[in-house]
Amino acid sequence: MAGGPSTPELAIAVCQAGGLGFLAAGYKRADAVAREIQTVRAATGAAFGVNLFVPGAEPATPRSLAGYLAEIASEAARQGASVGEARFDDDDWQAKLQLMCTERPAVVSFTFGCPPAEVSEWLHGAGVAVWVTVTNVAEARAAQAAGADALVVQGSEAGGHRGGFIDDGSDEGGIGLLALLRLTARAIPLPLIATGGIMDGAALAAVLCAGASAGQLGSALMLSPEAATAEAQRAVMADPGPTRVTRAFSGRPARGIVNRFLVEHSAAAPLAYPEIHHATSPLRAAARKRGDADAFNLWAGQAHELAHAWPAAEIVREIAAEADAVLERVSAGRRGPGTSAGSRSPSS
Amino acid sequence: MAGGPSTPELAIAVCQAGGLGFLAAGYKRADAVAREIQTVRAATGAAFGVNLFVPGAEPATPRSLAGYLAEIASEAARQGASVGEARFDDDDWQAKLQLMCTERPAVVSFTFGCPPAEVSEWLHGAGVAVWVTVTNVAEARAAQAAGADALVVQGSEAGGHRGGFIDDGSDEGGIGLLALLRLTARAIPLPLIATGGIMDGAALAAVLCAGASAGQLGSALMLSPEAATAEAQRAVMADPGPTRVTRAFSGRPARGIVNRFLVEHSAAAPLAYPEIHHATSPLRAAARKRGDADAFNLWAGQAHELAHAWPAAEIVREIAAEADAVLERVSAGRRGPGTSAGSRSPSS
Repeated sequence: MAGGPSTPELAIAVCQAGGLGFLAAGYKRADAVAREIQTVRAATGAAFGVNLFVPGAEPATPRSLAGYLAEIASEAARQGASVGEARFDDDDWQAKLQLMCTERPAVVSFTFGCPPAEVSEWLHGAGVAVWVTVTNVAEARAAQAAGADALVVQGSEAGGHRGGFIDDGSDEGGIGLLALLRLTARAIPLPLIATGGIMDGAALAAVLCAGASAGQLGSALMLSPEAATAEAQRAVMADPGPTRVTRAFSGRPARGIVNRFLVEHSAAAPLAYPEIHHATSPLRAAARKRGDADAFNLWAGQAHELAHAWPAAEIVREIAAEADAVLERVSAGRRGPGTSAGSRSPSS
Repeated sequence: MAGGPSTPELAIAVCQAGGLGFLAAGYKRADAVAREIQTVRAATGAAFGVNLFVPGAEPATPRSLAGYLAEIASEAARQGASVGEARFDDDDWQAKLQLMCTERPAVVSFTFGCPPAEVSEWLHGAGVAVWVTVTNVAEARAAQAAGADALVVQGSEAGGHRGGFIDDGSDEGGIGLLALLRLTARAIPLPLIATGGIMDGAALAAVLCAGASAGQLGSALMLSPEAATAEAQRAVMADPGPTRVTRAFSGRPARGIVNRFLVEHSAAAPLAYPEIHHATSPLRAAARKRGDADAFNLWAGQAHELAHAWPAAEIVREIAAEADAVLERVSAGRRGPGTSAGSRSPSS
């Protein structure tokens, strides 16, 4: 939940409720991440994790950018903002890796790619567990080969950026969480952390049955007071609006609630991350400030309407307790007398 | 699994294993469906279901068809076949409804739309339960209002046609099964049958936790000897090939294993069902017969590579038994000492 909702306060609250809180390092300089780590450590001695973006290999070609930058100039003007510089960067990669080896959080998770094997070795040497976000079995195999200790398995339901390695434009929203968990569990003998659409205890119980060791929450925490979710987004999160995967805001596929900007610009948006992210950044910030929910990225998963505006610790505790109750009830129901053999069969 | 894999033998085997076997009435005349029902009844006294396609409201415009028919003429020639007549029909709707009221299977499930309330009343009067396939909460509400007794909740993972009501081209692969089950369970107080990507007992256990009363199998049964799956498709089902949703074969979105025909024609294919289905029918039949897996529809769900070439009864029994074992193991693990509080928290 980089780029907004993630805060040290949210990570602290999750840790205090018995979860593994995460800090989002993406889009931030290493020194800002260092300050967030200090804030967490001042509040809790619990284990926590940090999520890093793996930088892309090369900048987009100026030719693929020019048309889209022209297209969004009117959007910038509408918000009283300018189009940002469409620059390539590596998200302060080396400095953040160095910070991780110094600060040694319990876990560093990676998104947008697979860290090289020497990075895993380096982190392992510092006593840090390496988790890699994957969206298909090929990525899972590559992550295993690169030394991952666990895989964050991101289903198509997930809000925000698709966390896979390669954006060749063919992802098409991706593989549903349940199918992806089974495919990955059958192929790769690593602990799996499920993410995408987990909004309540029944969903957590489901992913535990499907082979996950844990569930990772995103949208489920976005209405909590500890999250820095924009007010204009909070207002639409609880409504049953459809979501779509788009490159319009960042140049990289991400799932958000459908709004005017997404509808008008998805078709033209190039594969160009982080260039488009930087280009739209000022206009998105202005729209967020003005409360114009039709003009910034409303990242949210497919079940976002099930989010609660509860304190984060309460959300975590409620989901864990409900998962236990669901597992107890469903397994008792299968054991009990008078239940049918169960699996039902085909049509259409 | 209309249009190929579904057979009376498959339904019989599923029934005999304690499942609820289904006959696929789609694409068949009512008299052919009647014969299949007789075959099932001659073999088993168990309850079974029949799946019907709800016909569309109106034919496609000739203008939207012409370009695509020209495009696929070379595909037909390549197979030594002709382009079929791009005709609209209602899939023998009235005659099949009449047959359902006469034959009274335990369940009639509907796909591609919501039957009018008077159809539900009519079937209820005949003692037949009405199930409606849904892909979002709006469809679930409409099905409830029309008198459905249960909802077949189809996740984006599912192979074959998207079973929802309206094809406005915006479905984009749809909502993942886990998210869709939770959204539907929270909104609609009807029994839910989960479908899409359920290939093993762990997945069945997962959907039961997520609110389903049962799971419906499709791809999981397609390699069984009782299924009439084309030989050329069997050969690719067990490989980890990617799937995509396409209108190229039928004019209606359906998920199949990516092959040459799908890649070359998806972009141009219009929303025109059943016209395109009929137009491509001869060339698909010829390709199937010739074993050319690059030129017909390889309908399969996102976890198809987990299918087993076991007898259908064995598949059903194994999935049911594994679901019980998984539920027992996971709930015992949560109860047991030394397990963590469980739910994990956010990143990216």
